[in-house]
Amino acid sequence: MTPKDLPFSRPEFQRRLTKTRIAMEKAGIDTLFVTDPSNQNWLTAYDGWSFYVHQGVLVFPDEDPIWWGRRMDANGGLRTVWMSDDRVLGYDDSYVQSTTSHPMQDLAARLRAMGRHTGRIGVEMDNYYFSAKAFEVMQAELGDARFVDATYLVNWQRSVKSDEELAFMRKAARISEKIVDGYLDRVEPGVRKNEIAASIFHDAISGVDDIWGDYPGLMPLLPSGKDASAPHLTWDGREFQHGEATFFEISGVYRRYHTPFCRTLFLGTPGDEIRRAEAALVEGLEAGLDAARAGNRTCDIANALAAPLTRAGIERGARCGYGIGLSYPPDWGEHHASLRAEDQTVLEPGMTFHFMPGLWMDDWGLEITESILITENGPAQTFCNRPRKMFVKD
Amino acid sequence: MTPKDLPFSRPEFQRRLTKTRIAMEKAGIDTLFVTDPSNQNWLTAYDGWSFYVHQGVLVFPDEDPIWWGRRMDANGGLRTVWMSDDRVLGYDDSYVQSTTSHPMQDLAARLRAMGRHTGRIGVEMDNYYFSAKAFEVMQAELGDARFVDATYLVNWQRSVKSDEELAFMRKAARISEKIVDGYLDRVEPGVRKNEIAASIFHDAISGVDDIWGDYPGLMPLLPSGKDASAPHLTWDGREFQHGEATFFEISGVYRRYHTPFCRTLFLGTPGDEIRRAEAALVEGLEAGLDAARAGNRTCDIANALAAPLTRAGIERGARCGYGIGLSYPPDWGEHHASLRAEDQTVLEPGMTFHFMPGLWMDDWGLEITESILITENGPAQTFCNRPRKMFVKD
Repeated sequence: MTPKDLPFSRPEFQRRLTKTRIAMEKAGIDTLFVTDPSNQNWLTAYDGWSFYVHQGVLVFPDEDPIWWGRRMDANGGLRTVWMSDDRVLGYDDSYVQSTTSHPMQDLAARLRAMGRHTGRIGVEMDNYYFSAKAFEVMQAELGDARFVDATYLVNWQRSVKSDEELAFMRKAARISEKIVDGYLDRVEPGVRKNEIAASIFHDAISGVDDIWGDYPGLMPLLPSGKDASAPHLTWDGREFQHGEATFFEISGVYRRYHTPFCRTLFLGTPGDEIRRAEAALVEGLEAGLDAARAGNRTCDIANALAAPLTRAGIERGARCGYGIGLSYPPDWGEHHASLRAEDQTVLEPGMTFHFMPGLWMDDWGLEITESILITENGPAQTFCNRPRKMFVKD
Repeated sequence: MTPKDLPFSRPEFQRRLTKTRIAMEKAGIDTLFVTDPSNQNWLTAYDGWSFYVHQGVLVFPDEDPIWWGRRMDANGGLRTVWMSDDRVLGYDDSYVQSTTSHPMQDLAARLRAMGRHTGRIGVEMDNYYFSAKAFEVMQAELGDARFVDATYLVNWQRSVKSDEELAFMRKAARISEKIVDGYLDRVEPGVRKNEIAASIFHDAISGVDDIWGDYPGLMPLLPSGKDASAPHLTWDGREFQHGEATFFEISGVYRRYHTPFCRTLFLGTPGDEIRRAEAALVEGLEAGLDAARAGNRTCDIANALAAPLTRAGIERGARCGYGIGLSYPPDWGEHHASLRAEDQTVLEPGMTFHFMPGLWMDDWGLEITESILITENGPAQTFCNRPRKMFVKD
């Protein structure tokens, strides 16, 4: 047996497997093929930057999961998953980005050999790592199976965090605070944006004390001035300018667990428009935190936020948050509940969200956000502890 | 019109569009829907970390392309693409990660409104960003269309680089060299791996002179000792140990263009086995570089590499390289030609590859690689210039 450095206890992985099996049974799924790397990691502890080729986890009702992927990555499987070595399967390298064969042919052959090629097979239809082609090949190869859309099935099992997971998120939050302290200290007019991005990565990955930093599911975003009207620009080599607001969308990460945390820095003297928006946004955040109580619903948070913004004449037109925790690129959201008026999810203790009401206006952008934990009683707790405001350097 | 900072000249974008239209005509495609973020950027200059939601570029035979995505990201589209503002379309935020609606419904409605809903529509069936669900919804919504698999169609147009692109890759190579110099200097027994990963990011993104660094398509990989038997582990908080080899798989990146460059560092005195492998690998690399001539084929490089390795008793069982240049996560390969025995691509001047014959053995790993350019005459040029060997610190 290969030596392991498992992130969580064996009972924690059993808890996850049991929850998933119950959800499979409810959905009438006999065999579940999990392609979302976050779901793979949550179920098996598999870790590695190998999701750029086809790979996945098979979950059965009655035996341990199997990790399946490219043969060279099976070595990573042996070193990271909690299952025994015989539960790690590799396919030949000739399948990789081939135009004459497809890895799903190998998976189908293995399912046939296991007698798991009939019945109802769950697949994550709307995941990045389950392409239209992968599904087409599976359908062609497994004519006796019925396919069931299991998009978000495992993601929903992840929505309430265990104490072990919350401990990881609290570590990530310490890194998030370090990142914020760093850029607030270093950004000045004339400093190049990529220099600040470089120091954000350095702070994030060097971590805090023995809390080593992992890579984030989203790269840091730090657009300035008019560029901040666009929510997802990264950085370039230009200098920070006097008279501009920059939002910094970052997250500390500990062993794939994220606590995103955004603040905005204005260099110079902010005008009335952005100051009024800041006041309404902070009022909305505080109202939302107060509404974020067990038994309330996700839409209650969104509606509490919207009231002061509407009074200030701001219509956001976008969701104001999403479930967070374990994630791999290209996202750090967990893809279950969203904070928005049309989402009716009942809040439970242990749920964690990025309460993220970014304002992306025509000429500027403003982000002041909190990663939050739903508690047994009272309003949400925030993971990070820094002033809830737009920072200003005059 | 929104002010732009386009990475390339207008004629360069026209060249790309013309090449793509010729390939579309040859494949019998009337309308091409491009979801690969690298292909989107290559065709339109769209840039932003927004590919975690459905988005894409529509290419037509007879009018400018359209960038289509989430409404908030249309702001990023306006700021980055070369087309006029009316060629940027956004869909409502309620479609995002919804269980009751899908963004492809919006795309289908727009295609119908444009009269582009019939005929042959090309889609990238095996791309991360074209899920099984996206295709299912398109098929349901566009019953009068015929769908054509256009996987890798645009990627192949990217295989020969323009002079403008090669200038970007030469800038990226200077960053790659800086990264290598940095970790060779800093790594010592007792230094934590995440500290080195942090300084790799700092070197990569602070860049060289006015060459600002961009984020890589693959995160840095730096496994040590037995962990280096697995090719795609990232890092953790453990210390470097005396007596272990660590390979460093990194790439400098300038405006999305990559020149990956891997070296291995042994702390202590290497044993005979890894020394023999190093000698065979360097001999194979040099034979491969000599075989990498215009008119030869990709398999010639692979076969030239394999001969000395086979004599040393090493069977790799994996491809030894792939096309490189423009890329977004989760990969820095361009997904066209591979260097392997079964690939018959004829080498042309301007093609660029990561010649990457990693050795992942049972107890150790060794990576010595080169990013290469196929020239008019003579063997391949390397983008980076550092000794082609395993480095040793005793």
